[in-house]
Amino acid sequence: MVVTDDMQLPQQASPFDLKAYLRERQAQVEAALDRAVPLTYPETLYESMRYSLFAGGKRLRPILCLATCELAGGTIAMAMPTACALEMIHTMSLIHDDLPAMDNDDYRRGKLTNHKVFGEDIAILSGDALLTYAFEHIGLQTRDVPADRVLKVIVRLANAVGAAGLVGGQVVDLESEGKANLSLETLNFIHTHKTGALLEVSVVSGAILAGASEADVQRLSHYAQNIGLAFQIIDDILDITATQEELGKTAGKDLQAQKLTYPSLWGIDESRRQARQLIESAKAELAPFGEQAKPLLAIADFITARSH
Amino acid sequence: MVVTDDMQLPQQASPFDLKAYLRERQAQVEAALDRAVPLTYPETLYESMRYSLFAGGKRLRPILCLATCELAGGTIAMAMPTACALEMIHTMSLIHDDLPAMDNDDYRRGKLTNHKVFGEDIAILSGDALLTYAFEHIGLQTRDVPADRVLKVIVRLANAVGAAGLVGGQVVDLESEGKANLSLETLNFIHTHKTGALLEVSVVSGAILAGASEADVQRLSHYAQNIGLAFQIIDDILDITATQEELGKTAGKDLQAQKLTYPSLWGIDESRRQARQLIESAKAELAPFGEQAKPLLAIADFITARSH
Repeated sequence: MVVTDDMQLPQQASPFDLKAYLRERQAQVEAALDRAVPLTYPETLYESMRYSLFAGGKRLRPILCLATCELAGGTIAMAMPTACALEMIHTMSLIHDDLPAMDNDDYRRGKLTNHKVFGEDIAILSGDALLTYAFEHIGLQTRDVPADRVLKVIVRLANAVGAAGLVGGQVVDLESEGKANLSLETLNFIHTHKTGALLEVSVVSGAILAGASEADVQRLSHYAQNIGLAFQIIDDILDITATQEELGKTAGKDLQAQKLTYPSLWGIDESRRQARQLIESAKAELAPFGEQAKPLLAIADFITARSH
Repeated sequence: MVVTDDMQLPQQASPFDLKAYLRERQAQVEAALDRAVPLTYPETLYESMRYSLFAGGKRLRPILCLATCELAGGTIAMAMPTACALEMIHTMSLIHDDLPAMDNDDYRRGKLTNHKVFGEDIAILSGDALLTYAFEHIGLQTRDVPADRVLKVIVRLANAVGAAGLVGGQVVDLESEGKANLSLETLNFIHTHKTGALLEVSVVSGAILAGASEADVQRLSHYAQNIGLAFQIIDDILDITATQEELGKTAGKDLQAQKLTYPSLWGIDESRRQARQLIESAKAELAPFGEQAKPLLAIADFITARSH
């Protein structure tokens, strides 16, 4: 989609019901995931995959992908296989992250973690299966998109997940534990890779599938980078201020583990200010898209709202 | 490539030096892998990936892929990124397979396993990174092949690795441990998935990249299925007959673990006979390709020769 100045509309032009929007998209994504990963032989494996896939995620990554595809002139249908793949990969990262050899978490979103239910061996393998299936699903199920675009999405996604992205961020995070005097640079590296890269590719892949221009992909990429970092800062704040019940996971874990976090570096007030500023920058990138950007604008605001 | 009857040549037409062929291809694959996975930040992760990638594998899967691509009229260069990806995935499956929660192996090919050197957390993550990078590498580095063929290769590969392939085979294998009275059907399921699927896609992907006809892909797929099963039967035989030094891993492990194997079901002599028969069927599939099939014919023979 080519965006020109005269397409700009004031952001207050009409009310946008984010709650209803998220509810509708969430239901669509869950129905698609349910079809994508049926319960088949060997059942233990698929049960384990489905247990974590349907453990109550907000489906933020798929929804970002669908919203961006629509914003850039594509359809929900074009982006749905990629949207599902993003959730498969996010789920895989949580399953492996929770393992005893990693974060050793017993609970996630208020439910037992995958390895506590299915054992470590199955948890490792169902993570591997979800990761692999993500690429198969995009390649096999994407319709009405030229093959070169689909291939580009697979490359960007794999890059965001592997050693140059999520997994690389995990490794630096593990290596940083218990170390005093970590730099802001290292903290930023961890978060732009561990959580930021997958959020960014969620947005970027939607744009690529729709055939967005390189300039628009860049803008949307910046939007995603900013909300990704804001999201992490707010996560760190919540770890300190929220109760276990609100989080659905062990609260105060970062403090216990003496992890470097944004609030430990900046204090809570300054962290909130930085998060707000990132959200404003994110929203500024959307200005040229006018009315079409409403869902992405509302999602950006929604992320900040979590911190209160 | 269209194969017609008059292209058939007797298999004895000219001598074929398999040893030199394998040595040359192995060197090409290792040089390509070395370029594909450079040592960069975070170094621990890349060191761990490279440790297992360069732990002395025979590069059978990449070589099968390259050989099939050439057989079907393509070039080595067209198939090299996929060949490297196959080795990355094979390596990932070994790293995860050796973990304490899985087979709990301390040695592989005579060297300490990945988690014994780098720790379980890094071993899990470097497996994840290799798996992901395989798909990125194919999508990004494959040249002179139409995007739809590359996409097809990615889909076939992911299918061979995930829940419907290698990982599914692993799960059934884990669930079968210590169970008496396993059926031949279950044993076949385990091996056609755990080891067979990746060997099959090694061959099939080379053919697809070269633009082989569906009929030729089918023939080559049968070739690979047969040598894959023969390979496993011979592995089972070797586990009983070879010494630890020859294997580079703990010998007699299957017996100790009371695993169902082909020799335990058929005895060693009958197992050898079955393996030979599979190799003959595999070679029969190559008849229409004539002279071009020499490397694949020799590789089939090479597999049987391991059992003596």
